[in-house]
Amino acid sequence: MKAAILSIGDELMLGQTQDTNAKWLAERLASVGVPCVQFRVVPDALEAQATALRELAAQAPLVLVTGGLGPTDDDLTREALRLAMGETTPLVRDPDAAESLHRWFRDRGRPMPEINARQALRPAGARCLSNDFGTAPGLHARVGAAEVLCLPGPPREMQPMFERFVAPMLPRLDMATGVVHSFGQGESFLAERLGDRMRRDRNPLVGTTASGAVVSARVRGTGAAADAEAMDRELSVIEGIWAPYAFGRGDTTLAGSLGRALKAKGLTLALAESCTGGLAGSMVTAEAGSSAWFRGGVMCYANEAKRDLCGVRQATLDAHGAVSEAVARELAEGVRGRLGADWAASITGVAGPSGGSEAKPVGTVFIGVAGPGFVGVRRFHYPGERASIRDRAARGALALTRLAIGSPADFAVPFIWEWKPRG
Amino acid sequence: MKAAILSIGDELMLGQTQDTNAKWLAERLASVGVPCVQFRVVPDALEAQATALRELAAQAPLVLVTGGLGPTDDDLTREALRLAMGETTPLVRDPDAAESLHRWFRDRGRPMPEINARQALRPAGARCLSNDFGTAPGLHARVGAAEVLCLPGPPREMQPMFERFVAPMLPRLDMATGVVHSFGQGESFLAERLGDRMRRDRNPLVGTTASGAVVSARVRGTGAAADAEAMDRELSVIEGIWAPYAFGRGDTTLAGSLGRALKAKGLTLALAESCTGGLAGSMVTAEAGSSAWFRGGVMCYANEAKRDLCGVRQATLDAHGAVSEAVARELAEGVRGRLGADWAASITGVAGPSGGSEAKPVGTVFIGVAGPGFVGVRRFHYPGERASIRDRAARGALALTRLAIGSPADFAVPFIWEWKPRG
Repeated sequence: MKAAILSIGDELMLGQTQDTNAKWLAERLASVGVPCVQFRVVPDALEAQATALRELAAQAPLVLVTGGLGPTDDDLTREALRLAMGETTPLVRDPDAAESLHRWFRDRGRPMPEINARQALRPAGARCLSNDFGTAPGLHARVGAAEVLCLPGPPREMQPMFERFVAPMLPRLDMATGVVHSFGQGESFLAERLGDRMRRDRNPLVGTTASGAVVSARVRGTGAAADAEAMDRELSVIEGIWAPYAFGRGDTTLAGSLGRALKAKGLTLALAESCTGGLAGSMVTAEAGSSAWFRGGVMCYANEAKRDLCGVRQATLDAHGAVSEAVARELAEGVRGRLGADWAASITGVAGPSGGSEAKPVGTVFIGVAGPGFVGVRRFHYPGERASIRDRAARGALALTRLAIGSPADFAVPFIWEWKPRG
Repeated sequence: MKAAILSIGDELMLGQTQDTNAKWLAERLASVGVPCVQFRVVPDALEAQATALRELAAQAPLVLVTGGLGPTDDDLTREALRLAMGETTPLVRDPDAAESLHRWFRDRGRPMPEINARQALRPAGARCLSNDFGTAPGLHARVGAAEVLCLPGPPREMQPMFERFVAPMLPRLDMATGVVHSFGQGESFLAERLGDRMRRDRNPLVGTTASGAVVSARVRGTGAAADAEAMDRELSVIEGIWAPYAFGRGDTTLAGSLGRALKAKGLTLALAESCTGGLAGSMVTAEAGSSAWFRGGVMCYANEAKRDLCGVRQATLDAHGAVSEAVARELAEGVRGRLGADWAASITGVAGPSGGSEAKPVGTVFIGVAGPGFVGVRRFHYPGERASIRDRAARGALALTRLAIGSPADFAVPFIWEWKPRG
């Protein structure tokens, strides 16, 4: 089986929106051994869409389409599919889809806008695919010899509909995949440590990918290597090789792995965030159930917030400045005390673009960690712009807290963003 | 002039890498009035590449290609271009390109690997485009009536080569684009308000897109409608029609628009976040320069944090529970006082997946806003799962604060997520 992917929308063609659907779909298809022969992106234009549908249907037995199913005048996928199926194919009203639409609005206590009615239309011979997360039903039809499935553009609607309607049509494969995530070192360093495990003719096949500052080893085994125990063994070996940087498998996040370490010992966490202003907290509270181990924290952006809410001494601020080892230490110790938490992390730095100096250039960040009988501060120098500096700093605070909980010695393990004094 | 964009690479087709080049190129082309008729992505396969080149060259007078110019066996763009120009076209060695390659390695004190020699080959009749940031020269040739420019895949090589070799070939602007963003209502509601403005035969052309909870109107004008004044007028009309939901244009975020409203009056902000735990703060501090108007805030996850750091009375917590109008009000007033801010917003709710009850189901969120002579609380019921509830709640707090600053009456404007008591 092969597939082709068509993404639709003027906002894509104008470069206003990044199409992430094609990548997501292709990765999902590749995971079950279905290669893609082509992605195509076309504007909200009827003829261009119909032509693309016909041409892709001639190239692959499975064509996945995203976008253009909304209720407005520029949503033309229904009409384009009708044309591609044959000029004389009529659009008909689907009673089930119409009922779903009415229910959607009824459940929300809102009247259905007139224009949404057209979302219950489908080409005769096509079927509607129900959408639990939005008003746009999908469509499934044959164009020539190909199965064509049209899904809505928003990823949070598209992805569950893929799993429900497309995944069951895909071949089953005697294959298993696994992932180990790490934080603190670069991809080259970590790949070198894996050595021969990354040979392209090995089964399981191991590759590395980097997403933001998280470097992951992706493992794919077929045949005997797809066995659950064999996969677990391979992932354990990689976790050992990558220790102490490896922090979890699968969909485990840094915050989740920290939460697990805290919960296992019945401990709690507090945060004091200056330059990240809540980013680490938002990662922590994105985890369901984090109220069991997260007490709260302070976005101590202004110096008064550092002083009045976290107990940093004015003398320390005056002597060392807000971005300093001393303030990071007092922030961590102070917020730990104020919130009655077992562990606390603090972040203070220069996220830029302005505010840097010779001694403390943009990207300079101090991260403090305080716990029972433990307090430590590390200084980093992150590359890149504001968003990536903040992201690495927030994740760094979570990673270092997790390392310190495991073993005080691990708190000092070298990171790739280590501050290096000149001269 | 119109353009088509071809991206090449197995890593794209397997969903391992997100193609960002097409979006970047399209945005750059749109900025000088060159619309794209199609993007296409094909694997490292000779026939697929040559076919795509021929088909796109038949559709647009300018075809931009990225990828496949490296030194390895799977880099086939040179050969595919040769085939698309005509089967009998030979590949020839370009002496200048060869000299550049040798210099690249000489400058780095490394011997040139044998395989790099092929990067100095070009189809007869094509010209090489020099690359200051990598070894792969680009290629420029005619295929049929189209100008085809092949650039390397890595963005930091591709982008300067676009500016140097492609930009001078582009026409002077006769198209302009603009965007208006809104928060608080659904796409259908807002599109209906635009009415005839969204007709597909209108110039400027107006379309709507939804990304998360932000609904945007995207405007494209050509000819007289591309005039800066005409575009500004169109965007102003849409802002008027969408008032008070419209909050900004272009790359303005909700946090940025709130910051602008505060800065214009020399005012400051504080936040108290329970279920969002720093998410609104992270949106605020993602804005460069937010230290001018953001004092800080409290991630008041545990009740003790609400009480001890934000001044919520224990009696209020006992009587109404943490998720209540009364607590949202005391949080907003309390954090405003503690941080000495002019305005403050608070968020307390049930983000799920657990913790809901009959009276306060998952998705129930109270948002409070306090300012000089103003305090208000609204109750919402957000659909969806934890991440989307938190996202809407955090943005809601920013949006409502901005509305309250503009006019206390606007604080009460209906949102699509309005809580509706039963019965």
